[in-house]
Amino acid sequence: MALEPGDVVEVVKNGVTYRGTVLPRTEEIPDNVLMIKLKNGYNIGIKITPETEIRILEKGEPPKKYSAPIKVEHNPELPTAALVATGGTIASRVDYKTGGVVAEFTAEDFLLSFPEIAELANLKLKQVSNIFSEDMMPDYWVRIAKGVGEMIKNGVDGVVITHGTDTMHYTAAFLSFALQNVPVPVVLVGAQRSSDRPSSDAAINLLNAINVAVNSDLAGTFIVMHETMDDAWTTIHPGTRARKMHTSRRDTFKTVGDKPVGRSLVVTKGGKIVDRKIKIWRHEFEKRGQKGFKIDAKANSNVFLLKSFPGLRKDIFEHILLNHDGVIIEGTGLGHVRQELIPVIAEATESGVFVGITPQPLFGRVHPHVYSTAVKMMEAGAVYLEDMLPETALVKLMWALGHSKDREKVKEIMLTNYAGEITKRSRPDAFW
Amino acid sequence: MALEPGDVVEVVKNGVTYRGTVLPRTEEIPDNVLMIKLKNGYNIGIKITPETEIRILEKGEPPKKYSAPIKVEHNPELPTAALVATGGTIASRVDYKTGGVVAEFTAEDFLLSFPEIAELANLKLKQVSNIFSEDMMPDYWVRIAKGVGEMIKNGVDGVVITHGTDTMHYTAAFLSFALQNVPVPVVLVGAQRSSDRPSSDAAINLLNAINVAVNSDLAGTFIVMHETMDDAWTTIHPGTRARKMHTSRRDTFKTVGDKPVGRSLVVTKGGKIVDRKIKIWRHEFEKRGQKGFKIDAKANSNVFLLKSFPGLRKDIFEHILLNHDGVIIEGTGLGHVRQELIPVIAEATESGVFVGITPQPLFGRVHPHVYSTAVKMMEAGAVYLEDMLPETALVKLMWALGHSKDREKVKEIMLTNYAGEITKRSRPDAFW
Repeated sequence: MALEPGDVVEVVKNGVTYRGTVLPRTEEIPDNVLMIKLKNGYNIGIKITPETEIRILEKGEPPKKYSAPIKVEHNPELPTAALVATGGTIASRVDYKTGGVVAEFTAEDFLLSFPEIAELANLKLKQVSNIFSEDMMPDYWVRIAKGVGEMIKNGVDGVVITHGTDTMHYTAAFLSFALQNVPVPVVLVGAQRSSDRPSSDAAINLLNAINVAVNSDLAGTFIVMHETMDDAWTTIHPGTRARKMHTSRRDTFKTVGDKPVGRSLVVTKGGKIVDRKIKIWRHEFEKRGQKGFKIDAKANSNVFLLKSFPGLRKDIFEHILLNHDGVIIEGTGLGHVRQELIPVIAEATESGVFVGITPQPLFGRVHPHVYSTAVKMMEAGAVYLEDMLPETALVKLMWALGHSKDREKVKEIMLTNYAGEITKRSRPDAFW
Repeated sequence: MALEPGDVVEVVKNGVTYRGTVLPRTEEIPDNVLMIKLKNGYNIGIKITPETEIRILEKGEPPKKYSAPIKVEHNPELPTAALVATGGTIASRVDYKTGGVVAEFTAEDFLLSFPEIAELANLKLKQVSNIFSEDMMPDYWVRIAKGVGEMIKNGVDGVVITHGTDTMHYTAAFLSFALQNVPVPVVLVGAQRSSDRPSSDAAINLLNAINVAVNSDLAGTFIVMHETMDDAWTTIHPGTRARKMHTSRRDTFKTVGDKPVGRSLVVTKGGKIVDRKIKIWRHEFEKRGQKGFKIDAKANSNVFLLKSFPGLRKDIFEHILLNHDGVIIEGTGLGHVRQELIPVIAEATESGVFVGITPQPLFGRVHPHVYSTAVKMMEAGAVYLEDMLPETALVKLMWALGHSKDREKVKEIMLTNYAGEITKRSRPDAFW
């Protein structure tokens, strides 16, 4: 009997027994790998070898269609949010009965999964991609920026972008630079656990992202995700200062080196919203309706993010620096590399490569004047990027090099604060 | 009149005026750069061009010798600490009068600067190197391990290693693996501000490092540095889990993903120690006097630490993977790279390169079974290194490859917990 999605199986391999529900094949999975969903909600892949034993414990039910799809009617009382789907865990739902992955969410799917949305906003949906965020590339960022920009120009009260969490902060940084003087909140949101797990954070995150998008006076690009492990407040992070700081916790995103923008709370009971709140801490972001919106989505992705470490080979350092248009170095301490490597920086910058220095410690500011190493690095042409996060600096350099090849112009762009990526003075309380 | 160290000068360049004391030349400084110490204690380097104006405001006094060097007598009532100097800010003191950098600290220098030491321990001094820690290389680690190991074998009650803070956690990780079953505390310590600045953390850190080295029952490799910005408690971090997390704060070191080992306090008044305390939280490290000490200091430094990011070029990825004996990848999220890069991992591992996966978020555990990307990376031969920090994994892989070229043996070493680098279960409270 052939295996079909939804079958409950027992797989014995190398003395280990796995029990779970067969998931449907996707293009991404090699032919010899069987994906099953375990009872604890995790999906695992098992490479099938001639020795692997598979027993079908129970045949799955045929895929079940929603018998009564929800009719989405425009509610003129409510604001309208653009819901831009890019993929990621938040949009990967598995039907427990069939094991079938619902990969492409439609507006109806979202409403079916999260019916409370209908109380918050009308939705305009756009699917830009359907990928896990580790596959996100700079050209996708450009596509997302243009798609979002068009929807804003056509009139929405806010934008929510569903996105995998792995690289959400890289995308958020790009949109922060590419969507200039945006008049509404652009909110990225994701989930750490897929919507089909009892512990999923998808619903709370999505409801709060929509709440912030349509009910706040913010304008700019933000990330909204769980503030703690509890299903309570979510935090609003600035798009250029958020970082994924934990592999699996729901409160994985943190604002690094600055204060979060604010927080949002949506309380539901029996499928109804019974309370919602928004608290803004950083009022400089409250500029809904600002003028001068411009979609400036260009990127030259030929940039490398290099973490300096003891033992980094000079020839490899040289290969990396001389084969890119720009390199962001995560320098140790106040922004250092081994002194032996400095002539390579000089060689690269002389041949037109932009070399930017960011803090490997993540918190705090790089500084070219404290130690002689940094003085020499600066003399060699390295540009010290203040307290810009390494990931944000990478994205910003791709964006800057998309605008100009002129070194001085790129330097000027890199050292100009556009969206909170450089602070004038580090906050003493912005450390843990 | 020629410029001499100690001269107070005014330098005008590009319309900016700098006032400070001329520092002596060192080999590291290019000939055309003048180093001066500003009033705020920072040293800066100014590149002298034909347009630069220099005025001597005041000639410096000739270098002053300490008139009465302290006579260090062995106190049989006190324990003995090995003090191993490697360089770094903690050992860079500038004489305010002469501008002369005291670069090579002797035991007498340390006692002169920090006279309270004499109340804590007798010192046996060893100078292993005198470099800033950004220049630290794996062969220095081996030298430090052997030097420290010999001193322990000859009998000391504890070891203190003064070290630059930039890469102190890399060195601490190496010593954690190279000094096995060490019977005494091996404590790395540094400073964020040089000893000549009023706000220096050097004295407090050094006194507490010695306190932990001779007065605790710990055994293993640790880092002792300020716990907060105040001159109060210092934290004892495990050598495999400490990370420099801020470019400039005194409390820059944090234990990442686990609980610190404990804390130490030394209170001084008028140059005398009036109170000292040690509080241990993790009693599994209290094993002073344990048997089986072994110096196992080998390293193959041909390892690269690669941070995955959107836009990472496949050809560069290939160049890095195929030109090293091992590569530690900081994967996004639960340990992912772009799927397009996975065949390169397969190619590299088939040709004998060890590819280890660590968490780019720093906190939490990588996991090869949750998403299909990781399943495929594991199938391609990547080894998921649990919750090992990327920097620790780099150092451990250098150490492991120093022992064996056999892939399975190296994998076994990498997945065996030697010194707290892998935890069985992540602590829910080990996040900020």
